[in-house]
Amino acid sequence: MFPAPTYTQRRKQLADRLPTGLILLPGNGEAPMNYRGNAYPFRQDSTFRYFAGLNRPDLLLTIDAETGEGLLYGDEATLDDTIWMGEQPSLAELAQQVGLTVGGSRNEAFGAVAMAEVVHYLPLYREERRRVLRRCVNHSARPSEELIRAVISLRSYKSAEEIAEMDRAVQISMEMHRAARAGAKPGMREAEVAGILEGLAIGAGGRLAYSAIVSRDGHILHNHAHGNVLRQGDLLLIDAGAETDTGYAGDITRTFAVGAEMTEQQRAVYDIVAEAKRRVIEEIKPGVPYRELHDLSARIITDGLKDLGLMKGSTEDAVAAGAHALFYPHGLGHMIGLDVHDMEDLGEDLVGYDAEFRRSEQFGTRNLRLGRRLEEGFTITVEPGIYFIPILTDRWRAEGMHTEFIDYDALAAYRDFGGIRLEDNVVVTADNCRTLGSV
Amino acid sequence: MFPAPTYTQRRKQLADRLPTGLILLPGNGEAPMNYRGNAYPFRQDSTFRYFAGLNRPDLLLTIDAETGEGLLYGDEATLDDTIWMGEQPSLAELAQQVGLTVGGSRNEAFGAVAMAEVVHYLPLYREERRRVLRRCVNHSARPSEELIRAVISLRSYKSAEEIAEMDRAVQISMEMHRAARAGAKPGMREAEVAGILEGLAIGAGGRLAYSAIVSRDGHILHNHAHGNVLRQGDLLLIDAGAETDTGYAGDITRTFAVGAEMTEQQRAVYDIVAEAKRRVIEEIKPGVPYRELHDLSARIITDGLKDLGLMKGSTEDAVAAGAHALFYPHGLGHMIGLDVHDMEDLGEDLVGYDAEFRRSEQFGTRNLRLGRRLEEGFTITVEPGIYFIPILTDRWRAEGMHTEFIDYDALAAYRDFGGIRLEDNVVVTADNCRTLGSV
Repeated sequence: MFPAPTYTQRRKQLADRLPTGLILLPGNGEAPMNYRGNAYPFRQDSTFRYFAGLNRPDLLLTIDAETGEGLLYGDEATLDDTIWMGEQPSLAELAQQVGLTVGGSRNEAFGAVAMAEVVHYLPLYREERRRVLRRCVNHSARPSEELIRAVISLRSYKSAEEIAEMDRAVQISMEMHRAARAGAKPGMREAEVAGILEGLAIGAGGRLAYSAIVSRDGHILHNHAHGNVLRQGDLLLIDAGAETDTGYAGDITRTFAVGAEMTEQQRAVYDIVAEAKRRVIEEIKPGVPYRELHDLSARIITDGLKDLGLMKGSTEDAVAAGAHALFYPHGLGHMIGLDVHDMEDLGEDLVGYDAEFRRSEQFGTRNLRLGRRLEEGFTITVEPGIYFIPILTDRWRAEGMHTEFIDYDALAAYRDFGGIRLEDNVVVTADNCRTLGSV
Repeated sequence: MFPAPTYTQRRKQLADRLPTGLILLPGNGEAPMNYRGNAYPFRQDSTFRYFAGLNRPDLLLTIDAETGEGLLYGDEATLDDTIWMGEQPSLAELAQQVGLTVGGSRNEAFGAVAMAEVVHYLPLYREERRRVLRRCVNHSARPSEELIRAVISLRSYKSAEEIAEMDRAVQISMEMHRAARAGAKPGMREAEVAGILEGLAIGAGGRLAYSAIVSRDGHILHNHAHGNVLRQGDLLLIDAGAETDTGYAGDITRTFAVGAEMTEQQRAVYDIVAEAKRRVIEEIKPGVPYRELHDLSARIITDGLKDLGLMKGSTEDAVAAGAHALFYPHGLGHMIGLDVHDMEDLGEDLVGYDAEFRRSEQFGTRNLRLGRRLEEGFTITVEPGIYFIPILTDRWRAEGMHTEFIDYDALAAYRDFGGIRLEDNVVVTADNCRTLGSV
């Protein structure tokens, strides 16, 4: 947790951006796993945590947009709670830690909100928060775009104290990757490597920021299965990041050959991806549209694949047509912060796009979460990749897609290649950027 | 997963127990963590898994109580899903793996259920399943006690193939405990020990069956905080169990002194708890009421505490009055299986009590989840403990509670003791019982 004035200032800044009304920010409750009493590890809502700091279930924050007054609501621990869960801070102690005034019990929160003429709230991804709303907000109410925009306008710019936490998240993430790489041996199951990673994230006092990808099938982009046995020389793609005890995420990807040097073929593809990552990071500075950096990475990848004889024709035209997306069907990166895809619950397009840069509708580039111009204080991922996805290759070939840019015959030698992705996290500085974790 | 006939037989047995109607068993969906796209690791509903085996989200099972016919509903993976998540089995392939017939899409399930005259369903602990019900079941409908009782009457008796999985769950759990004990050193944070445990559970292809307790404050019974630094000689209480990839839980507790031999005081209390566990396990056999074994453990603990000069008077009377609960305020154990508290979502009293044995209302004993007579095939935990809980001691002393049985002055020397719990899992056999994991 940061010192109380941090939160007080954030709430004031938020209130300043909204003319009137009551801002309602319910914290998360427990999420039942296989019965009500066996919950998943508690995860606070990121926006609640940004404005109220507290990392415990069933709290509510309201902010009066006119006065900026923030009230904390929650139920006091009973004596029985104290016997079973140890000494619990009172609501007053919690409020004091983060510069808030006590509002009262949860029921009192429902009453106070029900009496407000205008209630601003955010989109809801958890049912327990929907239940809160049903208790106190008119059925026809909708999330407030004003509030969404105001929250995004604050959370997008990371303060020095936030950047220090993100450095720590990336440092822990890098330790996880180093241990996983050192531990991965032929004959092991992917799950054992995943266990090394996750054990370290928990050991550091936090958790994984997202379900880790640990796969010799790196070409399957959303692959959370860990059932394969590793063989010598397999490319192992690991996409895993820690969330610190303060809630900040790292998101790091590395790819290496298990128990072996890379083959020439593996190394050649790796070098293209590494070059794309390096050159994008060189170009990052305030004012540069991230969409242009995505296109730059697509051109570097296309050039590299042309050198390997897998693509052909004009690089510019191939990227404009989207032919590179056979090998690189995802976006270059996204905002990162208290969420690994920062503020995704508030709406991807409101976070990553604006009037100047609209999301593409083209296969591949439409998956880019961030298109707008970068600004100082943004923290973002840079994660180019090259994948050989048999099912997609077969489909495109059958449809005669982009035959002027892709040599399908040459692709046969890469059918079982898998995939390579490399990912760093950076903070945009006044002049350029700095790779996080490098302090 | 077990072979298909296992599930077919279970469904037939279930249908045989209900005269008529449609049994609706929705599987679990994804549980969002901090936004919809970042879910907690998927956890299937245990009853769905018991009758349909499949461990993937958003499936529905219906069973016709008259014919026993089981239908599987779910949406087929799209080509896009396949690109992002790899080759997905079709609904027909999934159904075939567990002896089911394809019912159709989720929407078709809603239609089929809406047309049924009588729908049996279970209590709901997850919102996504509540949403399923809202789509197809009358608002005034209530969970079916007939179905609850039928499910409990099947899941309570573990088959040989289930017991083999539970042995494996306990073996993995014991490896976790051995590694944690070997790893725990003075100067480490509790979280680091928790990381060792959880890493191994994941490495074994499963997960933790519940949030681990790793605490030098063993007297705080529901303590999932891991922030303390371990000091030499601290009693460290670890309550942690693995869930296997097949979904079965282990639940094991050990307590040891960090980097040291136990002191005489620690050892004396430890020996009482160990004696309680040993003697209870000796007494377990079909026909014995678990409530009586709980009372036996309370008497052994009371006798031991009398030897230490902390309790006094008649053991029988002290236990009848509930005086032991100052030191032992929880139950001796509970059913365990696909859930660590097996079938707790169906109702604790329906699982653990019956017309002969009703739940006690006395402080301490009222927390006992299992009171009924044991039967062959039950798998249960045995977990006596002794704790020194300052807040409870102060309260009882101030209220003059049980002064004829408790020497409050003598307790001063134990104020910072913490707590000791020891827990094994056993299966009730024809003649007595066997400790799980011991094969």
